[in-house]
Amino acid sequence: MRLLRLGEPGSERPYVRDDDGAVRDLSPLTAEIDGAFLASDWAARVADGALPVADVAGLRVGAPIARPGKVVCIGLNYRGHAEETGAAIPAEPVVFMKAPDAVVGPDDTVLVPRGSTATDWEVELGVVIGRTARYLDRVEDALAHVAGYVLSHDVSERDFQFHRGGQWDKGKSCETFNPIGPHLLPAAEVPDPQALGLRLWVNGAKKQDSTTADMIFGVAEIVHYLSQFMVLRPGDLINTGTPAGVALGQPEPKPYLVEGDVVELEIDGLGRQRQRIGQA
Amino acid sequence: MRLLRLGEPGSERPYVRDDDGAVRDLSPLTAEIDGAFLASDWAARVADGALPVADVAGLRVGAPIARPGKVVCIGLNYRGHAEETGAAIPAEPVVFMKAPDAVVGPDDTVLVPRGSTATDWEVELGVVIGRTARYLDRVEDALAHVAGYVLSHDVSERDFQFHRGGQWDKGKSCETFNPIGPHLLPAAEVPDPQALGLRLWVNGAKKQDSTTADMIFGVAEIVHYLSQFMVLRPGDLINTGTPAGVALGQPEPKPYLVEGDVVELEIDGLGRQRQRIGQA
Repeated sequence: MRLLRLGEPGSERPYVRDDDGAVRDLSPLTAEIDGAFLASDWAARVADGALPVADVAGLRVGAPIARPGKVVCIGLNYRGHAEETGAAIPAEPVVFMKAPDAVVGPDDTVLVPRGSTATDWEVELGVVIGRTARYLDRVEDALAHVAGYVLSHDVSERDFQFHRGGQWDKGKSCETFNPIGPHLLPAAEVPDPQALGLRLWVNGAKKQDSTTADMIFGVAEIVHYLSQFMVLRPGDLINTGTPAGVALGQPEPKPYLVEGDVVELEIDGLGRQRQRIGQA
Repeated sequence: MRLLRLGEPGSERPYVRDDDGAVRDLSPLTAEIDGAFLASDWAARVADGALPVADVAGLRVGAPIARPGKVVCIGLNYRGHAEETGAAIPAEPVVFMKAPDAVVGPDDTVLVPRGSTATDWEVELGVVIGRTARYLDRVEDALAHVAGYVLSHDVSERDFQFHRGGQWDKGKSCETFNPIGPHLLPAAEVPDPQALGLRLWVNGAKKQDSTTADMIFGVAEIVHYLSQFMVLRPGDLINTGTPAGVALGQPEPKPYLVEGDVVELEIDGLGRQRQRIGQA
């Protein structure tokens, strides 16, 4: 079962794709794939729902969840990526935020910000929270708070991130900087979130090719850790870090994204994104 | 005219306080003081609305706006505060984020996080966006994008912020860490946002006493600047930085907040907050 939102930006409607490929209208059960829905017993309701098959030909694929309450990101969470950026291997998770309204659909145009010369790619496993997580006692309890997983592109502007005074957030929250989707795969269908291959191509050339087995801090550790610092709520999104292979890690002149480039990315079971790069 | 939200957490309803002190029910005009309402011609509609006077005795005062889409914060924006923290005077605004769900009402209990030994206070001028701001051309156009102003308490955990690996956000987004209100004062009633006194007391002793005239980057510069890096949308909140006088800037042992402390703060025209400090 895969959750989807289809339709024009701001007017997406909820759907579910069966294992046999049929797409069904989810709107008899919910108006939105949001925190309230994800916190409910939605999987059972969908299975029982006898939802009508929908004709979705030609519809745009939106982000598979409504705008998150917050987007929390983990930095430097793959050893190879920490090394390529010249950073130390972190002793505990590096945490930053992305503006929730940077979330767009998986195939929407990604805009190079005005004044940018260092727009970079980052394929990441996205974790969507399904149950409120606050001061979790045990790492072993953490995955029970995950509703599902999405493919996430944590687009980043390196000059804004590192050289414009202060915190990383400035290079992470630009318009269109977080494509997610195409679908949310329920946590129940992901027996091990640390066994997913993830890959990214720019203009057809493979740039990133790794597995979530190489994360320094796994999904359960991340959810447990974050819950000590903030309340994670249903519908929140966590981007869990990117493996080696970003433009920042390449020799000069670094091949940052420019208008007309095409980025494709995928994670096993979570589908594939394709973005044309535009100019803001 | 002052906008208010009154009622229990999560069930607040919208009200408006007239200049003569009468509180009127705003719900005939809107269910919520959110981005859509703030982007509308609400001041004229309120003036024309003949809204019924409401009996609000005993109601809790909530945050005066619905949960923001994002909370963007400016760091080190008063010279005295930069100096007391040992930081250089920033050449351009330092930007970080706070989790939007850290917003609470002005008199709600603020919780010291578990494991915290360095929970600190910060009185700040909060700016609420009323018109989408994207790549503004001129600083002079920026204030037209502001719906109004709120008193904001940017509660901060200094150990989480500075000594737990990485970015400041980790010490800024804890549960209850952003009381705002009691009311939103419309921008039209604030002729100069750089001429507001702001003060904070802990257990009755004055700790911060400054004026927004001492900001390094004023509200118009901040809105213009942020709009080059992200889209500011109606209902978003910007915390504009705190003046000198926080616990971090005091000699050892620094007087960080503990359970039972009482923090009071105020800004000219924006009202007063009073929080009891609890333990998470």
